[in-house]
Amino acid sequence: MSNILLIGAGKSATTLIDYLLNNAVTEKWEVTIADMDVKTVEEKIDGRPHGKAILLDVSNLDQLEQLIKKNDMVISMLPAFMHMDVARFCVKHKKNMATASYVSDEMQELHEEAKKAGIIMLNEIGLDPGVDHMTAMEVLDKLRYRGCVITGFESFTGGLMAPESENNPWKYKFTWNPRNVVMAASGGAVKFLQGGKFKYIPYHKVFRRTEVIDIEGYGEYEGYANRDSLKYIDLYNLEGVKTIYRGTLRRVGFSKAWDVFVQLGATDDTYEMENTAQLTHREFINSFLFYHPTDSVETKLAMLLKLDHDSDELRKVTWMGCFKDEKVGLTKPSTPAQILQHILEKKWTLESGEKDMIVMWHKFNYVENGIPHEIHATLAVKGDDDTHTAMAKTVGIPLAIAVKNIMRGKIITPGVHIPNTKEIYQPVLKELQEYGIKCSEKMIY
Amino acid sequence: MSNILLIGAGKSATTLIDYLLNNAVTEKWEVTIADMDVKTVEEKIDGRPHGKAILLDVSNLDQLEQLIKKNDMVISMLPAFMHMDVARFCVKHKKNMATASYVSDEMQELHEEAKKAGIIMLNEIGLDPGVDHMTAMEVLDKLRYRGCVITGFESFTGGLMAPESENNPWKYKFTWNPRNVVMAASGGAVKFLQGGKFKYIPYHKVFRRTEVIDIEGYGEYEGYANRDSLKYIDLYNLEGVKTIYRGTLRRVGFSKAWDVFVQLGATDDTYEMENTAQLTHREFINSFLFYHPTDSVETKLAMLLKLDHDSDELRKVTWMGCFKDEKVGLTKPSTPAQILQHILEKKWTLESGEKDMIVMWHKFNYVENGIPHEIHATLAVKGDDDTHTAMAKTVGIPLAIAVKNIMRGKIITPGVHIPNTKEIYQPVLKELQEYGIKCSEKMIY
Repeated sequence: MSNILLIGAGKSATTLIDYLLNNAVTEKWEVTIADMDVKTVEEKIDGRPHGKAILLDVSNLDQLEQLIKKNDMVISMLPAFMHMDVARFCVKHKKNMATASYVSDEMQELHEEAKKAGIIMLNEIGLDPGVDHMTAMEVLDKLRYRGCVITGFESFTGGLMAPESENNPWKYKFTWNPRNVVMAASGGAVKFLQGGKFKYIPYHKVFRRTEVIDIEGYGEYEGYANRDSLKYIDLYNLEGVKTIYRGTLRRVGFSKAWDVFVQLGATDDTYEMENTAQLTHREFINSFLFYHPTDSVETKLAMLLKLDHDSDELRKVTWMGCFKDEKVGLTKPSTPAQILQHILEKKWTLESGEKDMIVMWHKFNYVENGIPHEIHATLAVKGDDDTHTAMAKTVGIPLAIAVKNIMRGKIITPGVHIPNTKEIYQPVLKELQEYGIKCSEKMIY
Repeated sequence: MSNILLIGAGKSATTLIDYLLNNAVTEKWEVTIADMDVKTVEEKIDGRPHGKAILLDVSNLDQLEQLIKKNDMVISMLPAFMHMDVARFCVKHKKNMATASYVSDEMQELHEEAKKAGIIMLNEIGLDPGVDHMTAMEVLDKLRYRGCVITGFESFTGGLMAPESENNPWKYKFTWNPRNVVMAASGGAVKFLQGGKFKYIPYHKVFRRTEVIDIEGYGEYEGYANRDSLKYIDLYNLEGVKTIYRGTLRRVGFSKAWDVFVQLGATDDTYEMENTAQLTHREFINSFLFYHPTDSVETKLAMLLKLDHDSDELRKVTWMGCFKDEKVGLTKPSTPAQILQHILEKKWTLESGEKDMIVMWHKFNYVENGIPHEIHATLAVKGDDDTHTAMAKTVGIPLAIAVKNIMRGKIITPGVHIPNTKEIYQPVLKELQEYGIKCSEKMIY
């Protein structure tokens, strides 16, 4: 028997836990799931053999180290900023590690030590980052193997609602960490390359510089730019490429309405508001508008942002309950972003029976034998229900498959990695097909 | 004889040096002026007695400490972030200190030690901060002494051009640290109080939420909000006030044009651009615009920001040379803000014979015997020429007068201070009148 430790068993770990326990007998695994909330973990284990729940407070470093020592492989589903204690113990005790998070600078610094310890520290092996890397690299490597010169790469992913559950004007609900949705594209200028020119977009213009993408079989979506597309030149070996652009998909009209919050300053996370506890939704919005003794909040908002009273943007914001005299319900001093998230969560939470959907779309431009070509690759996955979401599947299954291949000795190169090498992406993509997670490619010209 | 040490003798120290040397005989001062550039200091001393120039590298802490030990009073005209080494030696060796900079948290933490050492550490004794505090507190204290209840306080200051030198479409040039002008209002949301409501403006809306102020005898100006007006509630004892707003004055139309740079993201100081050395003015602007194989930079900018081709904003940006194919001329990787500053400095530098002007305007609302009243107070100072600027006068003279009053034993309360007490502002404001630096008050109702 070999031993797997999963740390953190939140919402997005459901499918991961299912995979680990359903494969435990054939793979000879003992799976320990450590979390602050043992009861929920036990519900998720649901009596299946070879799984045990354990109470862990990750700030208890002694307990964390002892747990890691007893296992062969560690999966961290903790928030990204909490991985490092786990990572350092994994290096110390020579245990393989996997996460679905972006490689931080601190994590990257462990590369040489990990190589020396002979362990694999695999990151970014969820959906985005994860499936995006793997599906892109598979096509890019194939094209380069044929001698093609890659001239452009664009990639968009969205955690969306399935069309049958698009039952609100935003056609959107949270299926992922709500804070990340509220903070999307913030924290620095967007950077990309287009037609050989470096381009930059400040945060307050990102949601007005979208492009519409018609995805065959799924209809029209719009894409807004992710923060730093330039780093993918190195990650995907795209030196000399003329265009590189990564973005996020939403239903058409989402971004213009979201931009209302951005323009107001309601997504600011840098200061706490003066009177959080007393604040109503309406007063929250009013805080960002000019003072007037009698004009309504709705009219002042429309005027400030030059919106028509019957505009789609105002309809969406109104549906969200932003103009209600209802108390926000936060008691501690909070930032605008925290307050906005709290208001959104009242309406944007999946209800029983509602299904989400993941859509990923890549566009490859390349020159083969002097002739320019374009390929589109599309991946779409629907959730089963409001627990077994497409998000949980597409984050959990790639991670679980990678773990299996590390345990089986199929993924062996030590060091800090992301799944941009054939050794990693090939076995994972192959098995993902069994779960209906695969790209369909289409040659455009 | 008593000994004064002035550290840092840049542009804004000219008038300060004149005052110190011109008063040295009667006041029995020996003035030591320490700077990296001894030659320029000697030119400023110009052979006057009781002044000597000394070479100082402030990172040489031994030399700094020895110098401070030998003097009775230290004036730091260093950039604000460099005051702390000076401040700690002043506490250690019990020397009084004065600066024209905002009190940092670190400086404030020295308050108890300064009291124990029996020394005065006077900050914010320039123009803004400085003259603004003093002229406001004098009126506020007078009103409160009469039993009035202060209901609103608004205050605007601008470092501007004298009307006869307003010879460019912006009616503006740098007369102060250009970096601070480029970064104005950035680094956090604007906060103020209006009609009893807390209000917040994100950076990208600040330059579109201006108000026009007609200042008697000087014409129309516009004011944009400074970052944190709320802290002045404490500083000026304004608890219970309904409106508090502080801002910066520019000629009408300036802010809408400046907003072009803000909207583009050209004032961003958080990342370095990819190709600084190759960049032309035109390519710099183009970096923030959407890609198009043939559309001109001018047209793309007008489209993105919804400007008419003959708009005042485009005229100002064109005059600035932003569309020129000229190399920026920076060789090190630089942030957009650094590059923009470099472009602006080519046009916005005072030329021989050009005069600047300082305008300060306060609005006080109060209730006396149940009746609401409003007073406006205006201060305007013109520069003599491009060296003896209004900026150098209004920063240097208040600082010098305060130093004289500390040396004479008229300002005596130890601790870290700003000039918001009568002990400090009364003698300084009194003597400032001799230099034509005084407010004229007008009762509006």
